[in-house]
Amino acid sequence: MITKLEDILSTNARGMKKSVIRELLKLTAKPEIISFAGGLPSPKSFPVEDLKEIIYEVMENEPKIALQYSATEGDQILKKELVKHSIKEGMQVNEDNILITTASQQGLDLVAKIFIDRGDKVIVELPSYVGGLGAFNAYGADMIGVPQDEEGMSATVLRQKLLELKSRGEKPKFIYIVPDFQNPAGMTMSLKRRKEIIEISHEFNVLILEDSPYRELRFEGKPVPSIYSLDDQNQIILLGTFSKILAPGFRIGWVLAHPDIINKLVVAKQSTDLCSPAFSQRILGRFLEKGYLEKNIEKIKKMYHKKRDLMVESFEKYMPKGVRWTTPEGGLFLLVTVPDYIDTDKLFERALKYNVAFVIGSAFYCDNSGHNTMRINFSYPSEEQIKIGVPHLAKAIKEYPKKK
Amino acid sequence: MITKLEDILSTNARGMKKSVIRELLKLTAKPEIISFAGGLPSPKSFPVEDLKEIIYEVMENEPKIALQYSATEGDQILKKELVKHSIKEGMQVNEDNILITTASQQGLDLVAKIFIDRGDKVIVELPSYVGGLGAFNAYGADMIGVPQDEEGMSATVLRQKLLELKSRGEKPKFIYIVPDFQNPAGMTMSLKRRKEIIEISHEFNVLILEDSPYRELRFEGKPVPSIYSLDDQNQIILLGTFSKILAPGFRIGWVLAHPDIINKLVVAKQSTDLCSPAFSQRILGRFLEKGYLEKNIEKIKKMYHKKRDLMVESFEKYMPKGVRWTTPEGGLFLLVTVPDYIDTDKLFERALKYNVAFVIGSAFYCDNSGHNTMRINFSYPSEEQIKIGVPHLAKAIKEYPKKK
Repeated sequence: MITKLEDILSTNARGMKKSVIRELLKLTAKPEIISFAGGLPSPKSFPVEDLKEIIYEVMENEPKIALQYSATEGDQILKKELVKHSIKEGMQVNEDNILITTASQQGLDLVAKIFIDRGDKVIVELPSYVGGLGAFNAYGADMIGVPQDEEGMSATVLRQKLLELKSRGEKPKFIYIVPDFQNPAGMTMSLKRRKEIIEISHEFNVLILEDSPYRELRFEGKPVPSIYSLDDQNQIILLGTFSKILAPGFRIGWVLAHPDIINKLVVAKQSTDLCSPAFSQRILGRFLEKGYLEKNIEKIKKMYHKKRDLMVESFEKYMPKGVRWTTPEGGLFLLVTVPDYIDTDKLFERALKYNVAFVIGSAFYCDNSGHNTMRINFSYPSEEQIKIGVPHLAKAIKEYPKKK
Repeated sequence: MITKLEDILSTNARGMKKSVIRELLKLTAKPEIISFAGGLPSPKSFPVEDLKEIIYEVMENEPKIALQYSATEGDQILKKELVKHSIKEGMQVNEDNILITTASQQGLDLVAKIFIDRGDKVIVELPSYVGGLGAFNAYGADMIGVPQDEEGMSATVLRQKLLELKSRGEKPKFIYIVPDFQNPAGMTMSLKRRKEIIEISHEFNVLILEDSPYRELRFEGKPVPSIYSLDDQNQIILLGTFSKILAPGFRIGWVLAHPDIINKLVVAKQSTDLCSPAFSQRILGRFLEKGYLEKNIEKIKKMYHKKRDLMVESFEKYMPKGVRWTTPEGGLFLLVTVPDYIDTDKLFERALKYNVAFVIGSAFYCDNSGHNTMRINFSYPSEEQIKIGVPHLAKAIKEYPKKK
């Protein structure tokens, strides 16, 4: 190249960071590594036989629709089914409230695209989903972290941060929350806290971006209504996805929001990828129509429940004193906190020598804290791997040199 | 909503315009309308039987790969096949030069994302692909149009524009060119002009973005090498797609570029949609591996050749004097120029009354000129529809009131 790339990159591109997780996944791709790192669903969770039936029917009956462009807004059949699915989850929506996206990562990208100017404030949880942080960072957002307590994002600190901003004449573009079995913390925001946060969002007139990829995967405890369903002022944008409840390979997610917001997202999506894969959309639409999704969710819940139990039991059995972990009622992750003298960035390399991997906690903290935490995934590793991997991880922790 | 949406949109979102084509397509969705408007491939061009064979094999043999996340860079099998395909087209590439995208619209989006700061200059053809203009506009690009002559983008005007910019200490981020059977003009850039443009790009040290969705669909005349294959300085980013040579429903395209550029695009893609559909990617990889793509391209070329002939013959037979059109040697479109007293924005409504639709030319001109042009698609309408639609369009043109 004659051109020096650094000279012509956009300001935002200069600030983009490689996804820590995607890079870790490369390191952990060796077959001998037991990976608690990725957020991948279990391949055993894919409903291969049911999908075969549906795919064959689609290719027999409607290939000309499945292989063509779809409307930017999404495939009609899938949108209809998602309306039903959402109503069942207590959300008052119709087709004008829905946009089909190329999985929920595109939902995060499009929301950032229509709202964020470089330097705009966004409130995020401490810790928060690294892909959300990456999407907002790609548009130059200035992220303000609000810590979690046992009920979720702290309402007290949130109010305080909003007041601070207000005193400077500023306001965040939105509050980003993963309320159900949070990634990475595994915790669920309480009903009381959801209501408090909504009240604060009304008071300060700020949108909430509710990202809920694991919501349907509750294997114990009482379901908590979505923030979307609790709000009566259309201040919520909800992101859903089929990646964890069906299969990520289709790349299909959805946004629920007020039609005015949906319209803006549609325009942004037109220039981003025109439409999401019609082939995936029609297959998923027919899959839902036959009631196969519910069946699959039941199967996954049983599978992950067992794995979580095994993971937590193994932690109890092998971890040294001073190590703490969350016990999620659903989803894919638990967050582990180790004593302060351990930096999980360094622990990562030590664990790799024992052929076990995790995601370093600091990746999830917009303020670069959380160096004594790590995210542990229990959906992807087999039960056998959990049994072998946890004692190895415990060994790496025990051997970590204490400060002198 | 409590929040006034206009108050919180990003500056770029305020400037986003609904895609004219996508909006027209809604108007023309009525079954009685003969549409020469969309850029849709013929549904008869989809290789349904071959695809069935491949899809069934993938679901039988490797569902756990096809249904899982893929690497952001793309599926290994598909990348390998695309290297072969590109080498056959005269391009010296390996897997490090390739990124799989969610069709080429995402290629346009990602290139814009990593290069364009609000107000940055981009050189485009007059006329140019509306989806390209939309993608650059979404990042606030300031587009400078360079007219085409019979050999393609004018090298003289290009040099002049670059000199003008240089005298102000400015430089465009890239030159956007659709060199083969251009959308909307239907014309192909000559070999001589390609070499001139490359020379200019070296002289002024500017990247070229070569967007070539129809390249493989040449049904007459001699192939011209891609700009990518003619350049020896890695200054070209090439966008390819399966949308027109196989099926848009998979949403799979690719970028060829220097590995340093690919790496930046990968980082941008991580936060945009993580990866393109693994399901589509693996199916297409196996489809190419079996040599089914070549077979399909041959079929499409025959089909579209016949339709183009019919379209041009019908134009010759029915159009009044003063109407001119391009005769493309491939691709999907011809550009029609009507006498100056006709504004195709207004002609569009008159044509709709005759149940025939096209895309207004001004949508393709970044300087809002081209009001006496329109884009005519011949891939999607049936032969029957072409025969009926052209005389109707001619009638609407003849009846358009002349200036007094």
